[in-house]
Amino acid sequence: MDIVPGILKGDKRSIARLITLIENQADEARDLLKQLYKFTGNAITLGITGPPGAGKSSIVNFLAKKFRENNKKVGVIAIDPTSPFSGGALLGDRIRMQDLTLDDGIYIRSMGSRGALGGLSRASYDAVKVLDAAGMDYIIIETVGVGQSEVDIIKLADIVALVLIPGMGDEVQAIKAGVMEIADIFVVNKSDMDGADRLITEIQMNLDLNQDKNKVKPPILKTVGTTGEGIADLYKTIIDVQKQLQDSGMLTNKRKTRINQELQELIREIHLKQIISSFETQIRIFTEKALNKEIDPYSAAVYILENAKL
Amino acid sequence: MDIVPGILKGDKRSIARLITLIENQADEARDLLKQLYKFTGNAITLGITGPPGAGKSSIVNFLAKKFRENNKKVGVIAIDPTSPFSGGALLGDRIRMQDLTLDDGIYIRSMGSRGALGGLSRASYDAVKVLDAAGMDYIIIETVGVGQSEVDIIKLADIVALVLIPGMGDEVQAIKAGVMEIADIFVVNKSDMDGADRLITEIQMNLDLNQDKNKVKPPILKTVGTTGEGIADLYKTIIDVQKQLQDSGMLTNKRKTRINQELQELIREIHLKQIISSFETQIRIFTEKALNKEIDPYSAAVYILENAKL
Repeated sequence: MDIVPGILKGDKRSIARLITLIENQADEARDLLKQLYKFTGNAITLGITGPPGAGKSSIVNFLAKKFRENNKKVGVIAIDPTSPFSGGALLGDRIRMQDLTLDDGIYIRSMGSRGALGGLSRASYDAVKVLDAAGMDYIIIETVGVGQSEVDIIKLADIVALVLIPGMGDEVQAIKAGVMEIADIFVVNKSDMDGADRLITEIQMNLDLNQDKNKVKPPILKTVGTTGEGIADLYKTIIDVQKQLQDSGMLTNKRKTRINQELQELIREIHLKQIISSFETQIRIFTEKALNKEIDPYSAAVYILENAKL
Repeated sequence: MDIVPGILKGDKRSIARLITLIENQADEARDLLKQLYKFTGNAITLGITGPPGAGKSSIVNFLAKKFRENNKKVGVIAIDPTSPFSGGALLGDRIRMQDLTLDDGIYIRSMGSRGALGGLSRASYDAVKVLDAAGMDYIIIETVGVGQSEVDIIKLADIVALVLIPGMGDEVQAIKAGVMEIADIFVVNKSDMDGADRLITEIQMNLDLNQDKNKVKPPILKTVGTTGEGIADLYKTIIDVQKQLQDSGMLTNKRKTRINQELQELIREIHLKQIISSFETQIRIFTEKALNKEIDPYSAAVYILENAKL
């Protein structure tokens, strides 16, 4: 089957082939994505973020099943950290999800986190577009809880759910500025553990102090990722938040901002590939000068750029 | 005390102030670094890398003490992952090192991992220069074992030590291509555990298979990070490797390559700041077009760049 018609029919093999081409930065991927672009924009993208060990994978697992029960097609992109050393835990999480992969209405893919866009790779952005064009109703993006990807998720997701667990001390205080603010939904997972209610109080207090008064206060939900308890509520809440975003025009605004940012990134990326080669001789000359301490590298870079009359 | 003379005298407060200015990307940092540049190039930079949990911090701790016993001034830069969620373990590691901070011949600093240079931030590059100008004989850079910083360490370090531990399964096979190759020294830590000898055999076999025949085979050492066993040997090996690098001219070659790469990065970075603002109107127009599916973002970026006649 040709890739583009295959993807438009939701064929898993075609989806997998294009995402692999994207990951390998194959030239043909660019053209295929261009053909698919006009079929995108229908899926709701849902970011699941939170610290390592919060049980994000279990929640994604149950949530994907819940979408399927409601006859929604769902894609899952699990962002793994691009580590040069292997990590057993992550792989284990993925294996747990294999019971879902026999279902034709679900597509699951792990992807690396490295890339030009901070924590999320360009490839993951493009993979979301592929799943969107393939007719997924929802695309879940699960991040790893380390690094820039937590904050970057807002660049990719219409709705962000932040998963926290009790018993880590002053959890909410320890979360860096900017992360609480991106959450549309708070999920207190492992809520059968001691301290779940205290965590909820902490989240509420933090929201009271810091949240924009004009914004709707994000709902806080309890789940138990090992049993699936609370997932039905989470599902319902996601649908509610989606409706609010659509009715208020916020969804279109979010997507416009996202395209604007993507365009900026792409201009940077494409332009960079061109620029360095044109300065090759100059860079070689000034490397010698800097090695001999005649000039520092920063001043050299400024000099080269200023004299290039771009 | 003025910052530049302060740093040249090795004053810790001046060092700390400039590194903070660097982290905050203050404009004055740039000028101060320019003044300091001609006083750099004397320190040997030593990268300590390896998977999370390998005991890198303990080794760095003991090694720093060993440098002090031998009257060498030593700077430590610990690269922490820039996580929006707090991690107790990392903080704990740093606290352990506080018994060293009363000594005037040692300076320890944690820095975030995010930045334009892949895994290592521009700030960490500049901080190395500050410690170099401050008269440190050795600068130890400890990475976090996650992400690009493991491979990037070669951009910053004259000598790279790769720390591994037994009992993780097929350890050596699991290490991504490119990581084994950057190590000048292999450290088998927790060598009192079962499987240490098997790990050493695995490393040796891997080196026999993959190592460049013309290169000196990197030494493999055993340590026990909790007790400091083997650190004296590690210290001696570092001094030996340093001498080899200096005598063979390899050290100068490495540094030349490093300056060349830094210059390329800086040209990219400075240029990028200028370019986006000049395209503001075009980006706005094409954001609308992409939102309406008239054009895909990649084609739009190419169009904007081609019509800018740079």
